Amino acid sequence: MPRISKKGAQMPPSPIRKLVPFAEAAKKRGIKVLHLNIGQPDIKTPPQALDAIKDAQIEVLAYSQTDGSEEYRTKIAAYYAKNGIAVTANDLIVTTGGSEALLFALGTILDPEDEIIIPEPFYANYNGFATSSGVTIKPITSKFEDNFALPPISEFEALINEHTKAILICNPGNPTGYLYTHEEILQLAELVKKHDLFLIADEVYREFAYDGKQHHSILKEPGLENHAIVVDSVSKRYSMCGARIGCMVSKNPEVIQTALKFAQARLSPPTLAQIASEAALETPDSYFEEVVTEYVARRNFLVSELSKIEGVKVAKPNGAFYCIAELPIKNADHFAQWLLENFEIDGETVMVAPAAGFYASEGLGQNQIRIAYVLNQEKLKNAVAILAKALKEYPN
Amino acid sequence: MPRISKKGAQMPPSPIRKLVPFAEAAKKRGIKVLHLNIGQPDIKTPPQALDAIKDAQIEVLAYSQTDGSEEYRTKIAAYYAKNGIAVTANDLIVTTGGSEALLFALGTILDPEDEIIIPEPFYANYNGFATSSGVTIKPITSKFEDNFALPPISEFEALINEHTKAILICNPGNPTGYLYTHEEILQLAELVKKHDLFLIADEVYREFAYDGKQHHSILKEPGLENHAIVVDSVSKRYSMCGARIGCMVSKNPEVIQTALKFAQARLSPPTLAQIASEAALETPDSYFEEVVTEYVARRNFLVSELSKIEGVKVAKPNGAFYCIAELPIKNADHFAQWLLENFEIDGETVMVAPAAGFYASEGLGQNQIRIAYVLNQEKLKNAVAILAKALKEYPN
Ligand SMILES: Cc1ncc(COP(=O)(O)O)c(C=O)c1O
Ligand SMILES: Cc1ncc(COP(=O)(O)O)c(C=O)c1O
Repeated sequence: MPRISKKGAQMPPSPIRKLVPFAEAAKKRGIKVLHLNIGQPDIKTPPQALDAIKDAQIEVLAYSQTDGSEEYRTKIAAYYAKNGIAVTANDLIVTTGGSEALLFALGTILDPEDEIIIPEPFYANYNGFATSSGVTIKPITSKFEDNFALPPISEFEALINEHTKAILICNPGNPTGYLYTHEEILQLAELVKKHDLFLIADEVYREFAYDGKQHHSILKEPGLENHAIVVDSVSKRYSMCGARIGCMVSKNPEVIQTALKFAQARLSPPTLAQIASEAALETPDSYFEEVVTEYVARRNFLVSELSKIEGVKVAKPNGAFYCIAELPIKNADHFAQWLLENFEIDGETVMVAPAAGFYASEGLGQNQIRIAYVLNQEKLKNAVAILAKALKEYPN
Repeated sequence: MPRISKKGAQMPPSPIRKLVPFAEAAKKRGIKVLHLNIGQPDIKTPPQALDAIKDAQIEVLAYSQTDGSEEYRTKIAAYYAKNGIAVTANDLIVTTGGSEALLFALGTILDPEDEIIIPEPFYANYNGFATSSGVTIKPITSKFEDNFALPPISEFEALINEHTKAILICNPGNPTGYLYTHEEILQLAELVKKHDLFLIADEVYREFAYDGKQHHSILKEPGLENHAIVVDSVSKRYSMCGARIGCMVSKNPEVIQTALKFAQARLSPPTLAQIASEAALETPDSYFEEVVTEYVARRNFLVSELSKIEGVKVAKPNGAFYCIAELPIKNADHFAQWLLENFEIDGETVMVAPAAGFYASEGLGQNQIRIAYVLNQEKLKNAVAILAKALKEYPN
């Protein structure tokens, strides 16, 4: 019997999906499961995006250009200009989701054995992409007590060695909801310039910045042109996760030319979804204002209601649509499974993501969960009630 | 200035795209370029596939299931059953094109430094996927004189060492158009069983088997269950290359479970394209009969007309829609560029793919080109006339 690769054996299963069989079993028992465990928003996709596909006159559904059509890339550049980011259509490659942009970015700048520093907790699939690329993640722990602000820059500096090639941040953060300040971005910019590193920013949640706070893209920093690589996506921006369209952006031409070779190997990003994504760029500002208002309301509700539960603390998020809560329990993995297996109120229970899976350091986040506030407030209300009662009844 | 990775530097640019700037320049000069260089068919996508998307009632374009919806996978399994291949919905993962299936397959079974044996000439992007996965391709040359039949099994055996993990074939072949016989498949089956290797078959051209010859899937071989991995795609089958839907199939559960972890990292294949691909499975047999009739007519025309040109030889293909021609020239790279830069008849020229890019062994295929017969016969007629006259005028 031939054997799978070591790499394959090492690939981490998605922590968010570990509990899926228990959720499925609960559903089979007739239990309604409120999904706070995944970043799949309930927000409607802008209708013009979907209409553009219905209106498209296609006879042969052909490959698109490898890096995305020039027209679409030009419009993306205009979108960035509107966000104060000066890039051209040639500074970006349209990818199959932000996921593929991450894969291309890692392949472009890191060899097996190379190291990339990432503040933890971080988006769990960075682990998968790092393993499949054979590169090593060096985590730096950001603290719950600080709302997961950037750890002291000295801690980054202490980790840098000859294998270090890049720092990766997610801004605003999944799973933390933390929005980096301009000061923090400047510190990172100084650091990568000093040590000649790349700085990758996963900015797929760029639009989701709350409380009047501004998102600071690394692409805006002067002097960072050769260092900055941005990972972007239409998935969350227009609630069109199923499109699988994103892009990788850099003003470093060598980076783009190299990433293009990875892109050529896989031929092209999805053609239909590019039509939708191009049309989505016409989404009026009012759409985002409504969406942001809705997320802020959900967050406010969630944070205040969760904080009322005895022993529960919440790190207040200023962006994205996630928050991390500390629970008065020892093992959130066990609690999350117990919720699905043994608990319900009126036939309803909640699925949350245990936060340990978002940490690279062993043993951290055991009493934390990540909640995605991607459900409407009525459902969130039920979810909080379920959590409150569950925490009382849970045999810790 | 931070440096890109060694891997990135080593990534081969797509050989098919090397000439693109010259084609673009020709177009700017008003020249019409007949594209025989890429596998983008002109055949119409089955209308029901495109209609399914127009008819879909979507409000939130959500992620699909990581491995593809159960419904779609069940229908794919039924498609295989119709083709005499017994697999279930759980033996396959829906991927973003056959391209991603290749990437998952390599990641699942090969570690950096491992070796995979591939008969050359082969689909050039295998090089890109191997480089990005850090694995080494060991080519075995198949011969023009044999129409690129399977090289003697002793040559495979001679290459096998402790790093060898798999053999990859493309059946029918791109760029060769060769359709492996059952006897050849049996030989490979014996070999991989004897040495405990995986056998990957890229069967994306399965339907394109001509002259009454039958396609033999490796999935049909008894005893090969744990060894066989098939890469498949809707791209060519339904002329929907832009959908970006394919699948990876194996009856080895460890292989599928491992590939699933790679799939989880990238979340999901495109949702819209899966709707189209599911509907495409209802395409009536008459569609394929017509398409095959058309390709056979094109091939017959092309092979017979090209063979009439002095000094030109063609390896007769029994499948796919490519053929390799040997030209009375020294350097097909130069000739292909010359065609775009210096030649035209009535404002029209031809773009072909120099075959050297499909060989891994240095120096092979220099006088060969690959022609994709993806244009209608009228255009093929012009293309052959252009090639004939060009070969006369070309300053060799
Ligand atoms: C931080 C972050 N980056 C990247 C992605 C990848 O998203 P996609 O591939 O859908 O663009 C996600 C999805 O949840 C995410 O949360
Ligand atoms: C032999 C072969 N395999 C795989 C592919 C990948 O195709 P796709 O990713 O569109 O399914 C192609 C495309 O031309 C091909 O010719």
